[in-house]
Amino acid sequence: MTEPGATQPDQPPAGDDPAYRAAVVDLLGALAYGELTAFSRLASDADLAPSLSAKAELARFAVAEFGHFERLRRRLQDLGTDPDAAMEPFVAALDAFHDRTAPQTWLEGLVKAYVGDGIARDFYREVSAYLDADTHELVTSVLQDAGHAEFVVREVRQAVAADPRVSGRLALWARRLVGEALSQAQRVAADRDGLTALLVGGLDRTGADLAALVSMFHRLTEAHSRRMSSLGLSA
Amino acid sequence: MTEPGATQPDQPPAGDDPAYRAAVVDLLGALAYGELTAFSRLASDADLAPSLSAKAELARFAVAEFGHFERLRRRLQDLGTDPDAAMEPFVAALDAFHDRTAPQTWLEGLVKAYVGDGIARDFYREVSAYLDADTHELVTSVLQDAGHAEFVVREVRQAVAADPRVSGRLALWARRLVGEALSQAQRVAADRDGLTALLVGGLDRTGADLAALVSMFHRLTEAHSRRMSSLGLSA
Repeated sequence: MTEPGATQPDQPPAGDDPAYRAAVVDLLGALAYGELTAFSRLASDADLAPSLSAKAELARFAVAEFGHFERLRRRLQDLGTDPDAAMEPFVAALDAFHDRTAPQTWLEGLVKAYVGDGIARDFYREVSAYLDADTHELVTSVLQDAGHAEFVVREVRQAVAADPRVSGRLALWARRLVGEALSQAQRVAADRDGLTALLVGGLDRTGADLAALVSMFHRLTEAHSRRMSSLGLSA
Repeated sequence: MTEPGATQPDQPPAGDDPAYRAAVVDLLGALAYGELTAFSRLASDADLAPSLSAKAELARFAVAEFGHFERLRRRLQDLGTDPDAAMEPFVAALDAFHDRTAPQTWLEGLVKAYVGDGIARDFYREVSAYLDADTHELVTSVLQDAGHAEFVVREVRQAVAADPRVSGRLALWARRLVGEALSQAQRVAADRDGLTALLVGGLDRTGADLAALVSMFHRLTEAHSRRMSSLGLSA
């Protein structure tokens, strides 16, 4: 939680600076469409569930993601932006990612949700370091995990324990997910200067320099490896 | 809300009579699985939406259905029943219905949600006349429409106005939905004596006699025709 008045120096509230405001709208639009597609994917993966309770559990996570979407949509409206227009630039990349990584099994769906959401969450947390206090608070709060991770780790570890061959297949699957995610992220970065500038400091604000970027990618990779080993898979 | 002690005469609370209790568990199990599949179907139909706002709107209805599912699941647990076991007898029929009526277009999805949910809602409301006060209150409250109907009517009428040929195709589609729903309902009725007895009074309780059943089907048909004409379609 951010204290009132805890706005960091050099980080004015969204709206004061048009370039900064556009970058924030981009960020919230990308996050919002990410949450909306997360809702759809989890709801659809729930159909692969091995039991009715597991199906309900996944549906519950989908509903939590939709709650995040609603908060982001409202913030976009409060900023005087049409949420559809803010999400539009990210539809193609996110849809392409999901089309190329449609899980064929319950376990693939779980690993995708855990690994994919994990990387996205870490990335947005890194970006949020350069945000004004209000946006920072919203972004970190919608990125909170609703207990999904614990459920996935338990299910995947059980499956790997029951049949060790599962482990190699899921590790390969996770590598494919990371590859597809990176390739779509590059596409978005090439397209959306404002969003990229927010990260690398090109908006004449405090941003990350090259060394900071390198160490960010290092942190993302390390967190990904930790997630993979908590699943009992090699990264 | 039901006042304590407002239980109707001849309608003891669920649990006093084993046959009645089994019928109520059947009813709540059927409704719960109906809500869970409604969640999945609406979430998946949202992918057919022509705009991001329409997609979000349908996702919002899916989330409302999941809230109903959670209430039914909790009630089943309060009755000392495993919710999965209570839903299980209805999985095959409901899945078969949805598999045979997977919408190919956004409008087919909307008509299915409106027409199908409408008939199911009317049917459960009729059944709930024979329930104890607590169960009656829960059933009528989860059957409340969350504004979905209004949205569907507006979208379908606009589409029919823009292209009158749409009307005949959607009217045919609605007839197919009703046919499939009836055939799956018969399958459930043949299988679940308790549930059927609840409706026709075979549990030695106040139920519907044949004349009452005939007039119930008459009311269901009339309500269906009204829904069709509010969509601008012939029944």
